[in-house]
Amino acid sequence: MRFFSDNAASVCPQVMAALAKANHVDTAYDGDTLSEKLDGAFSDLFGRRVRALWATTGTATNCLGLAALCPPHGAILCHEMAHIEVDEAGAPGFFTHGAKLTLLSGHGAKLAPETVEDACERVRDDVHQVQPAALSITNSTEYGLSYSPGEVAALGEVARRRGLALHLDGARFANAVAFTGADPADLTWRAGVDVMSFGFVKNGGMNAEALIFFDPAKAEIVPRLRKRAGHLLSKGRYLAAQILAMLDDELWLTNARAANAAAAALAEACGPERLVYPVEANELFVRMTAGEADRIRSKGYDFYDWGPGEVRLVTSWDQDMDAVGQLAAAIRSL
Amino acid sequence: MRFFSDNAASVCPQVMAALAKANHVDTAYDGDTLSEKLDGAFSDLFGRRVRALWATTGTATNCLGLAALCPPHGAILCHEMAHIEVDEAGAPGFFTHGAKLTLLSGHGAKLAPETVEDACERVRDDVHQVQPAALSITNSTEYGLSYSPGEVAALGEVARRRGLALHLDGARFANAVAFTGADPADLTWRAGVDVMSFGFVKNGGMNAEALIFFDPAKAEIVPRLRKRAGHLLSKGRYLAAQILAMLDDELWLTNARAANAAAAALAEACGPERLVYPVEANELFVRMTAGEADRIRSKGYDFYDWGPGEVRLVTSWDQDMDAVGQLAAAIRSL
Amino acid sequence: MRFFSDNAASVCPQVMAALAKANHVDTAYDGDTLSEKLDGAFSDLFGRRVRALWATTGTATNCLGLAALCPPHGAILCHEMAHIEVDEAGAPGFFTHGAKLTLLSGHGAKLAPETVEDACERVRDDVHQVQPAALSITNSTEYGLSYSPGEVAALGEVARRRGLALHLDGARFANAVAFTGADPADLTWRAGVDVMSFGFVKNGGMNAEALIFFDPAKAEIVPRLRKRAGHLLSKGRYLAAQILAMLDDELWLTNARAANAAAAALAEACGPERLVYPVEANELFVRMTAGEADRIRSKGYDFYDWGPGEVRLVTSWDQDMDAVGQLAAAIRSL
Amino acid sequence: MRFFSDNAASVCPQVMAALAKANHVDTAYDGDTLSEKLDGAFSDLFGRRVRALWATTGTATNCLGLAALCPPHGAILCHEMAHIEVDEAGAPGFFTHGAKLTLLSGHGAKLAPETVEDACERVRDDVHQVQPAALSITNSTEYGLSYSPGEVAALGEVARRRGLALHLDGARFANAVAFTGADPADLTWRAGVDVMSFGFVKNGGMNAEALIFFDPAKAEIVPRLRKRAGHLLSKGRYLAAQILAMLDDELWLTNARAANAAAAALAEACGPERLVYPVEANELFVRMTAGEADRIRSKGYDFYDWGPGEVRLVTSWDQDMDAVGQLAAAIRSL
Repeated sequence: MRFFSDNAASVCPQVMAALAKANHVDTAYDGDTLSEKLDGAFSDLFGRRVRALWATTGTATNCLGLAALCPPHGAILCHEMAHIEVDEAGAPGFFTHGAKLTLLSGHGAKLAPETVEDACERVRDDVHQVQPAALSITNSTEYGLSYSPGEVAALGEVARRRGLALHLDGARFANAVAFTGADPADLTWRAGVDVMSFGFVKNGGMNAEALIFFDPAKAEIVPRLRKRAGHLLSKGRYLAAQILAMLDDELWLTNARAANAAAAALAEACGPERLVYPVEANELFVRMTAGEADRIRSKGYDFYDWGPGEVRLVTSWDQDMDAVGQLAAAIRSL
Repeated sequence: MRFFSDNAASVCPQVMAALAKANHVDTAYDGDTLSEKLDGAFSDLFGRRVRALWATTGTATNCLGLAALCPPHGAILCHEMAHIEVDEAGAPGFFTHGAKLTLLSGHGAKLAPETVEDACERVRDDVHQVQPAALSITNSTEYGLSYSPGEVAALGEVARRRGLALHLDGARFANAVAFTGADPADLTWRAGVDVMSFGFVKNGGMNAEALIFFDPAKAEIVPRLRKRAGHLLSKGRYLAAQILAMLDDELWLTNARAANAAAAALAEACGPERLVYPVEANELFVRMTAGEADRIRSKGYDFYDWGPGEVRLVTSWDQDMDAVGQLAAAIRSL
Repeated sequence: MRFFSDNAASVCPQVMAALAKANHVDTAYDGDTLSEKLDGAFSDLFGRRVRALWATTGTATNCLGLAALCPPHGAILCHEMAHIEVDEAGAPGFFTHGAKLTLLSGHGAKLAPETVEDACERVRDDVHQVQPAALSITNSTEYGLSYSPGEVAALGEVARRRGLALHLDGARFANAVAFTGADPADLTWRAGVDVMSFGFVKNGGMNAEALIFFDPAKAEIVPRLRKRAGHLLSKGRYLAAQILAMLDDELWLTNARAANAAAAALAEACGPERLVYPVEANELFVRMTAGEADRIRSKGYDFYDWGPGEVRLVTSWDQDMDAVGQLAAAIRSL
Repeated sequence: MRFFSDNAASVCPQVMAALAKANHVDTAYDGDTLSEKLDGAFSDLFGRRVRALWATTGTATNCLGLAALCPPHGAILCHEMAHIEVDEAGAPGFFTHGAKLTLLSGHGAKLAPETVEDACERVRDDVHQVQPAALSITNSTEYGLSYSPGEVAALGEVARRRGLALHLDGARFANAVAFTGADPADLTWRAGVDVMSFGFVKNGGMNAEALIFFDPAKAEIVPRLRKRAGHLLSKGRYLAAQILAMLDDELWLTNARAANAAAAALAEACGPERLVYPVEANELFVRMTAGEADRIRSKGYDFYDWGPGEVRLVTSWDQDMDAVGQLAAAIRSL
């Protein structure tokens, strides 16, 4: 059984059904009846009028958002392990025409307000230095920690004071909501978030993510940027259909809870000694010797090594809980 | 019945079935078993070892190809009505970091070899002028004409002599093959084409196009460019599945033949007087007064006006031939 | 004697003297006492509070101005023979991150208001087409014609109505002022010009041009763009000194009058039959057979061929009027 | 007396004389007789056939070099205090179209080979991570340390092994040569340097720096990049003249020795306790309380604060040694 990545999981049946249902002639691009429902659907979810656009990847969604927030000559503050820095092949530099990522530290890929404050403080306000224009955080983080509403709000407060726009990479936002039990509004716009990527692909979707602007006015040029980046699909209804299916009946939350539950079960089996970070979403970073890892793998479980003496396990919405239980038992028996 | 655009058509059943069949856990990105079959499948089709990558839009496919062929300080020669110039929101400038499109004229969006030759001749070979690096043609063209193998080869010969890479926008390549009856190899690499976009979305696909490099060595940086542009989908198997389904049993050709047949039936009804261009694919540009257009529309047919006294009709793979026959009759009765 | 280009002329003595005078320790970049005088000096000249920055080349000056006016996804309308299109190696695409130049026609590289209007009219206002953001004109033009205040104002009126910023490439602005006798304000901001390049290098300077924003607020990011493009010289006082020397006592106008007078003398010798365009600045495009050109060259005069049966003569501020008289005589005697 | 920056110093008389001497009509751009001597002059200096181009700023020179070495999707390794990172307003991102600077640590802005090795080791060789393409070092460094030939060679060896091009920011290369007494060849190409910026402006020039390619083939597109960035001056002879004057009779070395000697005198006065870094060029970073700094300033010496309890003194080629002696005495008497 595979614990490599939620990226590799299957597509959930409700999404497949929605694709079939969308399979008729309709207006091209995002002029179809489904795409036009997105603004409303997300406005309902967030309790505020928002602008929502689909895109096919987390990288595109993040970078279109960042390009709307940061000029080519500006800087985006982010964690040194942020996905936009580590795993997007320089896409932020491409979409922003060369804006700089200023890298900050923090345990478990989480940023503290004072770290952001210090970074701003160090920049001379002159023409020789790149001025920070945006702050980007990830919730849940690349190491499976979840920010609470209060933690996001504290960062939002620094951002506001320093004139930074606040971007949220929410590739696993559903997992953060599932873990914290917070109102999505409290984790986002009420805490100062301007723009977010709302991920669905890791959570049971096929190839649709949502880019949400909490102030629709800030989204004005984004449809144009999306087209210019080749991300305006001609049959957009098949993306909108996926997202609407995920929003229906809180499927996004149900799926994330399932993935989190699988992770929690494994975390419990690992025990605090083995866990590099607390497990607050669907990722586990586990201390394990090479020999131990081999033993687990020999029983049919696949996962990535994550540096010496450490492995990463990622659970998905579609994880079989019996298999998870057996893996938990195998870990316990190490 | 809608004759707006093949972009708005439905997805054909074989593609939907392939998506369902691909719905299981597999390696992420393009490491899955389906994506890995693309090189082979297109190599078989073209009778030559090629490199094939999926992308979700024609714009992305075109521009990733052009970015591999033209440096930021180079120029791409193309027709003034080319899709890359007229309908891609400046995406070629984005992907190439500012390369220039040099616009050429020609009837029906078709280029003649001497037009290309003349354009090259006009450029001073110095550091002040942007030097042409690539030639891009579209087959079938934006006005529904199809280049024959000989016509492409004549352009390929100029390109070779002038040191230009040759790019083919094949958003409707299937329609050109269906019309000319030519071997795909004769319309491409044997005629000097280096890189092509092979379109499927207008022809029954959902959101997968193919980017083909006839010399795999020239594709080397493209996977990196694709990721950097946010076009590396994490569940790539659902794109590969579409393309493989379209290649299976020549579905791409069957669909294109259906669309072309519908267009031919309408063309026959229009008669040569009304046709602005000969109909050699699935698009018709028809002389029609506003009153005539109104009368046709009143019978339930939708289509775009295309300048004063002219309308555009586009047929699709899924066009109902009875409805086409009725529209043909309606046109005849004008 | 050389009639190749005013670019190759010598530096006038007042400028050399100003450089010597500036040769002491002062604040670096543009914080020195001379650079700080530029805003005031140009505000006096134009009768309005302006923002003025030095740069070393016409290309940089033009493109910094355009980058402030046009977003990466916008288009700049200009003449197909404009310097920014023909002779800047794609620099506008570089500085604007890929904005498009939309090329217009007009006799003698001059644009008519209706040409601009038509070009705007042709653009569909949707996300697929690049929207015009700026209009760029050159005065005097690349073919030595000068726009009158009324002609510029008519273009300014179209620009205003269409929401285009108006840029003026004034590499030979001095020659246009000298020819028309117009108030610089009437040829610029009173006629709707937002930003201009004010050329000095072709007119007796060494390596300093001025970029003028008639609305200082629009210049806000330009110092940053200039630095980011490597155009913020550390010893900026030697550029400011040149410009101030040129402005002093209207040296810029005196020099331009000298160059224009030389051109007028040659034009008179050519007679209307030989002149491709009326001579309204310091450039002549002259019909001359290859044999005639050879005869002139054999007498010691150098100039460029400009297509078959045509040569270009450019006069400079430092042209010896005796030599000009002898060349005039030589032309007359053909 | 000012100890702010060598950027603010005057231009040395030989350079002024060379400008006067170059003041005649000649071919425009870099086709003049002086510009054409650059390759030869630097080839003589380095004992190897090189390609040398002028540019007006260190930022432009550095970034044109880097753009020739690193693709848009690559990374440049450099020190976290490198000028290209800290003081060029994001110019490397502009010229390279978004390449990334990967920041490394090291005392006094110096890099150690193992730091570079480790940074390379950390990058996964896949399409998601930006791959290092170049290493950039500064000699003498931003904190006034000088690399020896052996130290550069050790970095060159890592670069070679890792497939990185090696770039040298030599804004103060003259000071490094003056300090180390090394042969310029041993500090550059013999140690593996591919491209360097050879600075003259901080060392008595007005506005000319040199960009040197030790393998002329690697410079092929650079003239085009320079023009496209607006850095091809039309009267290039006035830049070439400066550089040739600086090379003549080793003026560059004489000037650097003067600046270094002034720094050494001050260093001696400070004593090791006060010096944050050994003084190996013309910059001093000195521990000094705010009160002490005030006392020195009250005697007529100007300089920058450099963080709490620290000031920076920079000496220039034209520093009056009597004044330096008096400042030294003032420091001693603190």
